[in-house]
Amino acid sequence: MNSGLSSLLVSAALLAATCALGAPASSTVRGAEYPAINPDGSVTFRFKAPTAQKVQVQPGAAAGEPSGLGKGPFDMVRDSDGVWSVTVPPGVPGLHYYWLLVDGFEANDPGSKTAFGYNRETSVVEVPEPGVDFYLQKDVPHGDVRTHWYFSKLTGAWRAAYVYTPPGYDSNPRMRYPVLYLRHGGGENAEGWVKQGKMNFIMDNLLAGKKARPMLVVMDTGYAEPPGVTPSLAPGGATSRNTIVPLTLNELIPAIDANFRTLADREHRAMAGLSMGSAQTLQITLPNLDRFAWIGAFSRPAVNDFNTQTSYDGAFRDAARFNQQVRLLWLGAGTAEHNIHDSLKRTHDLLDQAGVRNVFVELPGTAHEWQTWRKSLYDFAPRLFR
Amino acid sequence: MNSGLSSLLVSAALLAATCALGAPASSTVRGAEYPAINPDGSVTFRFKAPTAQKVQVQPGAAAGEPSGLGKGPFDMVRDSDGVWSVTVPPGVPGLHYYWLLVDGFEANDPGSKTAFGYNRETSVVEVPEPGVDFYLQKDVPHGDVRTHWYFSKLTGAWRAAYVYTPPGYDSNPRMRYPVLYLRHGGGENAEGWVKQGKMNFIMDNLLAGKKARPMLVVMDTGYAEPPGVTPSLAPGGATSRNTIVPLTLNELIPAIDANFRTLADREHRAMAGLSMGSAQTLQITLPNLDRFAWIGAFSRPAVNDFNTQTSYDGAFRDAARFNQQVRLLWLGAGTAEHNIHDSLKRTHDLLDQAGVRNVFVELPGTAHEWQTWRKSLYDFAPRLFR
Repeated sequence: MNSGLSSLLVSAALLAATCALGAPASSTVRGAEYPAINPDGSVTFRFKAPTAQKVQVQPGAAAGEPSGLGKGPFDMVRDSDGVWSVTVPPGVPGLHYYWLLVDGFEANDPGSKTAFGYNRETSVVEVPEPGVDFYLQKDVPHGDVRTHWYFSKLTGAWRAAYVYTPPGYDSNPRMRYPVLYLRHGGGENAEGWVKQGKMNFIMDNLLAGKKARPMLVVMDTGYAEPPGVTPSLAPGGATSRNTIVPLTLNELIPAIDANFRTLADREHRAMAGLSMGSAQTLQITLPNLDRFAWIGAFSRPAVNDFNTQTSYDGAFRDAARFNQQVRLLWLGAGTAEHNIHDSLKRTHDLLDQAGVRNVFVELPGTAHEWQTWRKSLYDFAPRLFR
Repeated sequence: MNSGLSSLLVSAALLAATCALGAPASSTVRGAEYPAINPDGSVTFRFKAPTAQKVQVQPGAAAGEPSGLGKGPFDMVRDSDGVWSVTVPPGVPGLHYYWLLVDGFEANDPGSKTAFGYNRETSVVEVPEPGVDFYLQKDVPHGDVRTHWYFSKLTGAWRAAYVYTPPGYDSNPRMRYPVLYLRHGGGENAEGWVKQGKMNFIMDNLLAGKKARPMLVVMDTGYAEPPGVTPSLAPGGATSRNTIVPLTLNELIPAIDANFRTLADREHRAMAGLSMGSAQTLQITLPNLDRFAWIGAFSRPAVNDFNTQTSYDGAFRDAARFNQQVRLLWLGAGTAEHNIHDSLKRTHDLLDQAGVRNVFVELPGTAHEWQTWRKSLYDFAPRLFR
């Protein structure tokens, strides 16, 4: 072998070795090396637990739909130093919840950031989607996200609402803005749309590209109990369902309109939500179309007996009137959240047959996870307030 | 026994049983009953782990100082249903970090909220201090806390700064405000002063009582690495130390002055920090007294060779000049953080002897924990910008 070919082969081998190495996920904590994302999209988990007997990685599933990371649990293998590791095959890109089962105990991975899901802080791993960057932080003007406290008489407690103010909100003190109310899913909290969903970066990027109208985005907690009532952790539990509608209409919206420069009418007010939050969105908006003209249901939990005459208290019965009032009814789901997708597609078809104007957006390959909801917002927001 | 006495004894027994029952801590997650705070200030931890062999509660210690919750680890006892529990004796009130050791693995308690400490999300338990409510959320006007992104050329990355805007900031668009820069401790992050410290409620309460002047409070991350440099987790590591000073002076402060209505001069700019953040505060402010007139060091890590002529590059050598420039040098520590308290007291005594004007505040009984820093801010903030 001549030396030129030899050095070429060495270079190729080095390149292959380098490419096979993973890099820490963007969800990996500062200073840690694992979880790592490999070039093929597989994920390597690795951490030390010398005295544990059995350790597994368990992807989080929700609403009866599988995780994009796979079903699991994935058994980890222990080396002689007490370091456990496993590589999980490539799955659906995006943010996945997961936890470790350490001798059967559900524990977070010390190497990962956490986000609120499953009613507690849960480990997350972010798998990038090649060529997709609309939710990444780019070199464009950034809006702020404010934590704003308001008092609810209905719950007898202060609540924190999160408010995205677009770039220019502070430097244009006479300008007023339309408002999108954006709701989280079951087991999550009001920080989810920023922390997991990157909604602020999605809006920043849309606005920098002049693809959406500047708007405020308000994210409130999807749970609400009257004073003295024990919280229910069930998504859409009765307690929350009965309180969240009047709380949103009579306490949240007035607090936002009083403290931010909003355009406070139905034509400039939208609401959307994901999963449990989409069911709440429909409960809040459909009987109150004098307050909302733009509605989005992202990955609505399956409704198997949908009927255009009776469902949602007959909100769709008068198609002509509905079409006159509602500027946008947006329905969408990932194709990998099978039951939810099929149920929503059926609702869409029945609405179409009944002449109720609506948009149905399929997100190819994504699951009941945040990649679906990031893409939903990216499609939904540009259609608002036009 | 007559029936009157009998029923009296039954009532007394019921009362005793009721009083002995704890209530969920304010740090306990929605829907969970444990950790519970008992009337005597002891804390009961309890959770299910049927297949674990040994479980302990480990309070978090830092900077060589003990946790106010005790040293631990505290062994938990398993019942026949696989539920583990232990009651930890009354300790110092306030917010305590802790974790579980499940067969030796450090895991969070599923019953507790978490906060960022020890470079990861860590379980916390809040033990109320009887009669002390200055950091609780009350029925007073509340400021917002904004997440504001700015780009750092020194690190090649976007950074999130948290900015408290006092009540009235939005409704008085011509008013300008002084600024307090407030720094977190080692292993924590820029959310700590709000999440653990309740700085916004402390400021709200002070302002409602007209005990402090309205001000902005800015909280930035205490870590900063140049592009390509591997993060060091060591508090005050050299990488951060060399970058954090120019980053704060040349990138953070200009970003805040450009985007908020500040009074952008030294007389209206303060900086304070806790533990690692206090060391950074002294590194940033003392060589740059043309930029800062108000300085606070909360629980400064022990400095055993302090010397008024040479320490901090001789910043205290010319007492007359220092006294002319610095409106406030505030030093304080809890008496239960022994080494830190004694070292800071010694620094204070030496400064006094050298004629360098400073304030030394002892916080009785509190440890190297957030109760000390809440009380430090509550004492420090009212002295500013007078």
